[in-house]
Amino acid sequence: MAPTATPATESKDDLEATVKKLASLKPIGHSSFKGDVKVGYEGSWIEGLPESTKARYARHGVDISNGYPYVPENDKIPKFVDEAYAIRNEDYPFIERGKNADPEKKALFGAAKEVRNLTKHIGTEIVGLQLADLNDKQKDELALLIAERVVVFFKDQDLSPQKQLELGHYWGQVEVHPQVPRINHQLDGISVIWQDYFREKYGLGLTFKKAIGGNSQWHTDLVHEHQPAGITHLHNDAIPKVGGDTVWASGYAAYDKLSPALQKFLDGKTAIYRSAHQYIDRENPLKGPKYVEREHALVRTHPATGWKSLYVNRSMTVRIVGLEPEESKVILEYLYSVYEKNLDIQVRFNWTPSKPGLGTSALWDNRISQHFAVWDHEGNEARHGTRVTSLAEIPYFDPESKSQREALGLSLN
Amino acid sequence: MAPTATPATESKDDLEATVKKLASLKPIGHSSFKGDVKVGYEGSWIEGLPESTKARYARHGVDISNGYPYVPENDKIPKFVDEAYAIRNEDYPFIERGKNADPEKKALFGAAKEVRNLTKHIGTEIVGLQLADLNDKQKDELALLIAERVVVFFKDQDLSPQKQLELGHYWGQVEVHPQVPRINHQLDGISVIWQDYFREKYGLGLTFKKAIGGNSQWHTDLVHEHQPAGITHLHNDAIPKVGGDTVWASGYAAYDKLSPALQKFLDGKTAIYRSAHQYIDRENPLKGPKYVEREHALVRTHPATGWKSLYVNRSMTVRIVGLEPEESKVILEYLYSVYEKNLDIQVRFNWTPSKPGLGTSALWDNRISQHFAVWDHEGNEARHGTRVTSLAEIPYFDPESKSQREALGLSLN
Amino acid sequence: MAPTATPATESKDDLEATVKKLASLKPIGHSSFKGDVKVGYEGSWIEGLPESTKARYARHGVDISNGYPYVPENDKIPKFVDEAYAIRNEDYPFIERGKNADPEKKALFGAAKEVRNLTKHIGTEIVGLQLADLNDKQKDELALLIAERVVVFFKDQDLSPQKQLELGHYWGQVEVHPQVPRINHQLDGISVIWQDYFREKYGLGLTFKKAIGGNSQWHTDLVHEHQPAGITHLHNDAIPKVGGDTVWASGYAAYDKLSPALQKFLDGKTAIYRSAHQYIDRENPLKGPKYVEREHALVRTHPATGWKSLYVNRSMTVRIVGLEPEESKVILEYLYSVYEKNLDIQVRFNWTPSKPGLGTSALWDNRISQHFAVWDHEGNEARHGTRVTSLAEIPYFDPESKSQREALGLSLN
Amino acid sequence: MAPTATPATESKDDLEATVKKLASLKPIGHSSFKGDVKVGYEGSWIEGLPESTKARYARHGVDISNGYPYVPENDKIPKFVDEAYAIRNEDYPFIERGKNADPEKKALFGAAKEVRNLTKHIGTEIVGLQLADLNDKQKDELALLIAERVVVFFKDQDLSPQKQLELGHYWGQVEVHPQVPRINHQLDGISVIWQDYFREKYGLGLTFKKAIGGNSQWHTDLVHEHQPAGITHLHNDAIPKVGGDTVWASGYAAYDKLSPALQKFLDGKTAIYRSAHQYIDRENPLKGPKYVEREHALVRTHPATGWKSLYVNRSMTVRIVGLEPEESKVILEYLYSVYEKNLDIQVRFNWTPSKPGLGTSALWDNRISQHFAVWDHEGNEARHGTRVTSLAEIPYFDPESKSQREALGLSLN
Repeated sequence: MAPTATPATESKDDLEATVKKLASLKPIGHSSFKGDVKVGYEGSWIEGLPESTKARYARHGVDISNGYPYVPENDKIPKFVDEAYAIRNEDYPFIERGKNADPEKKALFGAAKEVRNLTKHIGTEIVGLQLADLNDKQKDELALLIAERVVVFFKDQDLSPQKQLELGHYWGQVEVHPQVPRINHQLDGISVIWQDYFREKYGLGLTFKKAIGGNSQWHTDLVHEHQPAGITHLHNDAIPKVGGDTVWASGYAAYDKLSPALQKFLDGKTAIYRSAHQYIDRENPLKGPKYVEREHALVRTHPATGWKSLYVNRSMTVRIVGLEPEESKVILEYLYSVYEKNLDIQVRFNWTPSKPGLGTSALWDNRISQHFAVWDHEGNEARHGTRVTSLAEIPYFDPESKSQREALGLSLN
Repeated sequence: MAPTATPATESKDDLEATVKKLASLKPIGHSSFKGDVKVGYEGSWIEGLPESTKARYARHGVDISNGYPYVPENDKIPKFVDEAYAIRNEDYPFIERGKNADPEKKALFGAAKEVRNLTKHIGTEIVGLQLADLNDKQKDELALLIAERVVVFFKDQDLSPQKQLELGHYWGQVEVHPQVPRINHQLDGISVIWQDYFREKYGLGLTFKKAIGGNSQWHTDLVHEHQPAGITHLHNDAIPKVGGDTVWASGYAAYDKLSPALQKFLDGKTAIYRSAHQYIDRENPLKGPKYVEREHALVRTHPATGWKSLYVNRSMTVRIVGLEPEESKVILEYLYSVYEKNLDIQVRFNWTPSKPGLGTSALWDNRISQHFAVWDHEGNEARHGTRVTSLAEIPYFDPESKSQREALGLSLN
Repeated sequence: MAPTATPATESKDDLEATVKKLASLKPIGHSSFKGDVKVGYEGSWIEGLPESTKARYARHGVDISNGYPYVPENDKIPKFVDEAYAIRNEDYPFIERGKNADPEKKALFGAAKEVRNLTKHIGTEIVGLQLADLNDKQKDELALLIAERVVVFFKDQDLSPQKQLELGHYWGQVEVHPQVPRINHQLDGISVIWQDYFREKYGLGLTFKKAIGGNSQWHTDLVHEHQPAGITHLHNDAIPKVGGDTVWASGYAAYDKLSPALQKFLDGKTAIYRSAHQYIDRENPLKGPKYVEREHALVRTHPATGWKSLYVNRSMTVRIVGLEPEESKVILEYLYSVYEKNLDIQVRFNWTPSKPGLGTSALWDNRISQHFAVWDHEGNEARHGTRVTSLAEIPYFDPESKSQREALGLSLN
Repeated sequence: MAPTATPATESKDDLEATVKKLASLKPIGHSSFKGDVKVGYEGSWIEGLPESTKARYARHGVDISNGYPYVPENDKIPKFVDEAYAIRNEDYPFIERGKNADPEKKALFGAAKEVRNLTKHIGTEIVGLQLADLNDKQKDELALLIAERVVVFFKDQDLSPQKQLELGHYWGQVEVHPQVPRINHQLDGISVIWQDYFREKYGLGLTFKKAIGGNSQWHTDLVHEHQPAGITHLHNDAIPKVGGDTVWASGYAAYDKLSPALQKFLDGKTAIYRSAHQYIDRENPLKGPKYVEREHALVRTHPATGWKSLYVNRSMTVRIVGLEPEESKVILEYLYSVYEKNLDIQVRFNWTPSKPGLGTSALWDNRISQHFAVWDHEGNEARHGTRVTSLAEIPYFDPESKSQREALGLSLN
């Protein structure tokens, strides 16, 4: 007699019970990390914390006595992709601080010792000004300057994490990451950027031969949010004596590199953007972890400058909506190459401050840029920083908006 | 007070219990299939079975009264990748039937009405001979002919599944797939090749715009086995009146297309080859399903001809061992293109038989070829067949072996 | 004392005199040919002419007593690119014969023994009909059939060059190539397709390892003409027993493979198309030979079917007008790959006739196709044919026209 | 009667006379330049010469009263490729100054105010030292430092062209380019690097959208010489206030990025390298201008450090000897990408000096590097410099030599 036909799936209850069980287990973590996600306070790593970081924390009353860094407890980390989608999934009223700022930025520039453009199209260094001392007028002008120059640098800063967080709140809703390491359980919204830690703890496999990966590749921060990242402020308080540069590229200029025909083709299109971390699919827990994916404008208009920018990056753009997969791949690959190969739209920044004990800040606008953290120090010298990201508006494309060069009356050839 | 540090993972027991539970649930299936794996006998599809197939089964006493096709019950399908690895993981004594065959193939050719080479480098059709009638001497000669011509065709065949299976056993250990659809639960070792069924049942998304996928792309069968596929015999008993061709490309000729310097570089190297289906990783069940992966010779010597062949295919070659990932990708992509772009080393075969009620057989050697099932019929006309694969030796590279052109004394330019 | 500044160029008169001298020297020839252009009658090659070709010529009173093949004398071959541009540079009234033909093709099909579609999307063979016997109604229907099926084949033909030429005149202005080998100096408009001759005489470097080149690569004929090629009729009178297939791909289907968004992007665009041969630039004779280049619609509407076709090919499309060079390169490369990788829109044809002494004709429409002459016979067996090309209309894009699948009501997914 | 067969070529005498005539006409020039080569002194451009350049020349008694720049007269410029090959075609005894230098470089470093490595793997700036004041011991040590660090920078230099030339002679045979603009007819061996001039005069089409081209792309200088460039010393005496950076990449590090298997494959191979300028082929004057091409070691050992370096660059490497053209293309493209995509093996340098009236020098070793002159200033601010190149040894591969990381005992992963 023939065996009776039976369904492959046991009862739906069984699956649900198992899925529930999964929910109590460890989170999946970052897609490039091979190790497990650690939670709670880290005991042993505090000893390896750079002296300059410890001094900064001590100076500003930051408590790291429980260990360092800190990752939220297991039950606070989303396990399922629907839980991750639910985070900040509603409209948040964003105020673009740069919009009504003085175009001449007299308050900001007047207080600085020097304002130095590092290249023609991207990157400005402000010398002789403490970020901690900025008034609101200056913060507005700085927001506009970042919107225009893509990234702005301040060396020799004495900046507390608390002040850095306060600045972030001024420029938008501060992103609180559910599982990225933090300073401690009080300072929500500050992420610890410590590649040596990620590398050893999470198995991020950076080596000399494999020095492209993690943040050490072209990417844009937090593109998968309902309202993706605007200004990110990375303050490095421990910097290798040599190396550890970061390179930024301008999305305005990338857009201006395209032919009018290709610009027109991309204008108004959307793409799918994904998160760096992965989560379980409740309906299909065995078919592999999933990214949070959201659809945004591929060419977006910056609300302060009104200029169009090419919003793509190799690490987190999944596909262009409306194209066949292979078409999308070919065109995205070309768009990435425009960002990456045109060295005239990039700035490479060395973080080294001249004054001991002080840190360096870079503030860039993720709406209009990609960046790449160069990993040439190979973990031999500490590189440690704190990062605060102000989320901005829901990306939009204004068909009336102009490209940067159009708006500035520059040659379009 | 600060929260206490807690490990992200609950006790190891919890994980094991959950994993055990997972094992009783549904298998993951083919990596390109979006739907669930169905098990047992299929009731409703039998009605759509082509008349010519039904007639063949009836003629040869094949029982499909329980439904059609049949997939083993859930508890017989491996869920975990370690279970899948365990299948046929030990050496099996393979006898190469072509090795001692008469090089002139007098018994085989003498019985045929016509022997027609379809192109210079690949593909021969034998006319006027029934596969079911071959004696052992002829089967040996056919094995050698396949080894030389890569693929051999027989039209107008009246071939029972039982006889097809018997032929397969003669040429090697017959592969029994743990979850691919079969005729019924008695006929282990015969796979049902019915793209319309796969397409609707498993969500294999073939459409006109997406006609590349599944078997409709360049691939080689069963490369992940401990002893991968040798001769595969596909007998099509239902064939579209127009379309549904299959294209094969020769691995001997692909190797001969390379420069001596690149040949030398590849000789002796190995690559990782993966299965089409995926399974749960017991140690890391949430990090996504895994393929069975095995390491084999990248350039392999065929035991019957002694000729070297390039053993790669776009669908199932993961990487070349010993190269950096990007190097491997670039070189594999080039090797795929050699197979795919050189139309002079390919044969395109139309299965149409001239006599109604009869089927067409193609017998090819997977050790020395790739193939591509053209999906131009778009499911509008039935295409149905039964497939038997004889596994061969553990792939090896004999440094003394020659390329086909070298051995035949042909120009190497 | 400093040397006096002198212009690099001698007087303009000197240059002109030299250029004039150049004009009397040898022409440059085909861009892939390494050797010199031979002119006049070829004495020695006539002995290598295949017997079947000689018999055909003898049967139909074709005079090859002066040698074979024949290339126009030196003073009749254009040397300068402006001279080459001047050929057929004016509008010629083209009549599309397929336009008003009976859509059911009753006259043609009724007279045939069998009409067999070789694949779903491209290629039809007509059996049991002599091309030489077609009446005008049948010729019109054949033009429509070619327009629909892209390429149509006739085996077992007894066809004189004179009749082949007459057929060509019926379907359009017959192209007379200024320097491609001909039968003799009377039969203008018939090109000799004899790859063995090209290979040895002109240094076309085909070998097994380099079997992609010349006609043995994806191309479309005569795209650089003011009114490019419509129907090309190749009659092969000497065919290798094995091998020497030709593969065609459909431009309708290639267009239908694209997403609606990419179709819209390409609709109405133009590209630059170049000749196979090169000529001296009179203004800049030392900066290298030039191609004749003309701008045509990239997506063109076929006047008989009204369907849109993707008019590109790897060998002769220079760039898309209005795109940056790198953009054009990336998008064209993608479009070529659509033609080349989708095996479901290709047909591979074996020319072998069953009856000795007869030839095989393929008639394809260059407006809607690419083709590739497979060179697997390696010159070991003769392959010889005569080709007549009927030029068609100036390519145009009708914004109201539909794709083939749209017009036929087929699924667009 | 049939026309008589005539050869396409007129008598050989005719061709020779014409070719001789061509030789007296204008040279062809740089392959990317669209305009004609200008010869002699340039009258009108002197007015556009930057003030800082004029001041430097005046300060050091450099005569530009005849015009500026100066290009050798027409009859001194080679027109035929054989003439270009004849330049420096014999072995010249090269002395590697870095070879016996003090590894600690005490004389050089002791005299400097600061020695600053700009990144981990490439680029060092020496502060507080005038190049014009170096003694031989220091010059030897500098040669070794350049050999180790790939490129060394000196800002705030007061350096005469004469002194720059003298330094060049110390480090090797100074290259005298037959047609690149010079300061005047006395100062052989100094090339004028003035992109604004090249751009307008020669039609080098740099624009914002096309900012990759000429020197503004990845290249290595003078790779086509019998003894290619060693140290190149570019002294910029006019520098845009913002922009105009140059980026260098290390060939040692590029080699160290490769897998041992690929390293072994490339070790001992050679490639063909071509010149930037083109010349007439005397035998085939109409088939287009030709580059000077020479074969060199693809992996070369540096005589001072003994380290292996990857000697390729996108602009001037034609092909790897012994590979099929497509293989060579794929592998070279990969090797270029290793240089270009790994930002950790690059340094980006801003030339801006802090002291007005002084210039900045960069000295790099072309044997072990590529570089890219960023064109973001768009010609709006002058960038002008003088360049002296010391040619080095015939490239060689020492199978006993080590990679940089091997020699330094660094991790090879």
